[in-house]
Amino acid sequence: MNVLLVYAHPEPRSLNGSLRDFSINRLEEAGHVVQVSDLYTMNWKAVLDANDSTVHEAGARFDPAADSKHAFEHGLQSADIEREQDKLRWADTVILQFPLWWFSMPAILKGWVERVYAYGFGYGVGEHSDVRWGDRYGEGTLAGKRAMLVVTAGGWESHYGPRGINGPIDDLLFPIHHGVLYYPGFDVLPPFVLYRTGRMDSERFARTCAELGKRLDDLGKTQPIAFRPQNAGAYEIPALTLRPDVATDQVGFAVHVA
Amino acid sequence: MNVLLVYAHPEPRSLNGSLRDFSINRLEEAGHVVQVSDLYTMNWKAVLDANDSTVHEAGARFDPAADSKHAFEHGLQSADIEREQDKLRWADTVILQFPLWWFSMPAILKGWVERVYAYGFGYGVGEHSDVRWGDRYGEGTLAGKRAMLVVTAGGWESHYGPRGINGPIDDLLFPIHHGVLYYPGFDVLPPFVLYRTGRMDSERFARTCAELGKRLDDLGKTQPIAFRPQNAGAYEIPALTLRPDVATDQVGFAVHVA
Repeated sequence: MNVLLVYAHPEPRSLNGSLRDFSINRLEEAGHVVQVSDLYTMNWKAVLDANDSTVHEAGARFDPAADSKHAFEHGLQSADIEREQDKLRWADTVILQFPLWWFSMPAILKGWVERVYAYGFGYGVGEHSDVRWGDRYGEGTLAGKRAMLVVTAGGWESHYGPRGINGPIDDLLFPIHHGVLYYPGFDVLPPFVLYRTGRMDSERFARTCAELGKRLDDLGKTQPIAFRPQNAGAYEIPALTLRPDVATDQVGFAVHVA
Repeated sequence: MNVLLVYAHPEPRSLNGSLRDFSINRLEEAGHVVQVSDLYTMNWKAVLDANDSTVHEAGARFDPAADSKHAFEHGLQSADIEREQDKLRWADTVILQFPLWWFSMPAILKGWVERVYAYGFGYGVGEHSDVRWGDRYGEGTLAGKRAMLVVTAGGWESHYGPRGINGPIDDLLFPIHHGVLYYPGFDVLPPFVLYRTGRMDSERFARTCAELGKRLDDLGKTQPIAFRPQNAGAYEIPALTLRPDVATDQVGFAVHVA
């Protein structure tokens, strides 16, 4: 299959760089075709602004959503945005690999999401009415594709456990899993998370590669996280709250997983 | 008091721009001194990289933490980073104002956090031992100061409610409140969140300003979110999990609030 690896680390001679190279080799050896968006090497423009359209009039009021819609519909998007959208259309599976910085993705990757997920591509897709609230959360442009995060963290696994001080890793990643990946339609696989990256030696690196390799081998058959589709009956529309008979009396991120 | 407003929206003639101007006026009329870091207008460099130190050797391996530590300790930080750190030292209260993009802060603001929160300033502060795990989560460089988010969202309030499809707003903001603000020492005030920004008229804008104005008037006396300090006994060290007798059997972000 076609795999897009979106990679966000500033130093190729890093643990992240080594894991990226390992992943590319493993995937290619398995017969997959791999494209890499190495955001730092590409000098990716992280900041969404009026220049993301090729025809923005100097001095005109900039509306992030309306201008994105106009540019997307009229073929006026900046070329770097179009290239990334084409890669996403081409991919069967997308991997986002990044170090966890301040409990989220690095700014350069956040800016990739903001700019590439244009209105009409990443959001603002489909009918908005009394019975549907757009093609999102399980439907959308990227439906049928799979996505997985590969994340490194300096802290210990216990710090990210159910009662760990940083918050549970599944909750920290929920805005990305559910809000960035499931939203435009991806089936989201459980993440590969590596902790305590300051303590790495060759033995642990080999073990890590074995574990990551297994996940890469299983990309096509791993069960996705069972997020609930928005328009299939579990949610009231337009309030978009879970119906009272679904996960009754429960609250929080976890209720959105069946 | 001294108030730093860090503002991240690309268009001054926007709802966010109007709320920013309102806030500055309201604070100044109350006798406060206000500085604004208008990240788009400043053309803030969003991407953390080797150029954040003034002496990075071409071709040398870049280590984000080690290089940040070295630059911070030896006065070799990029001037834009130093200026923002000085503003943070100067401020009694810091307000971060931004539109919620993909369930988090815009990339330009994320990059402000990543670059300004240097090793030795935002993290890597204080003793790491068997009884203390650094000055963080309630202690640190910015202890004694207050912080508050002002956030706009296109979605409805119900979409961000306890059972709303986007996830509860308090949980979405937890990585910022707890992980970005409480971590280096801030007392974190409850956020001001404005929903359904596409439906704004002059009457609703006046009501919004009245509500925001009240929050600004009360900056000095609003009760902060009762996050638990890391080194005061609630957590096991070094596992950094809540002690079994604290919030017994509970899990998730909410256990970190007393």
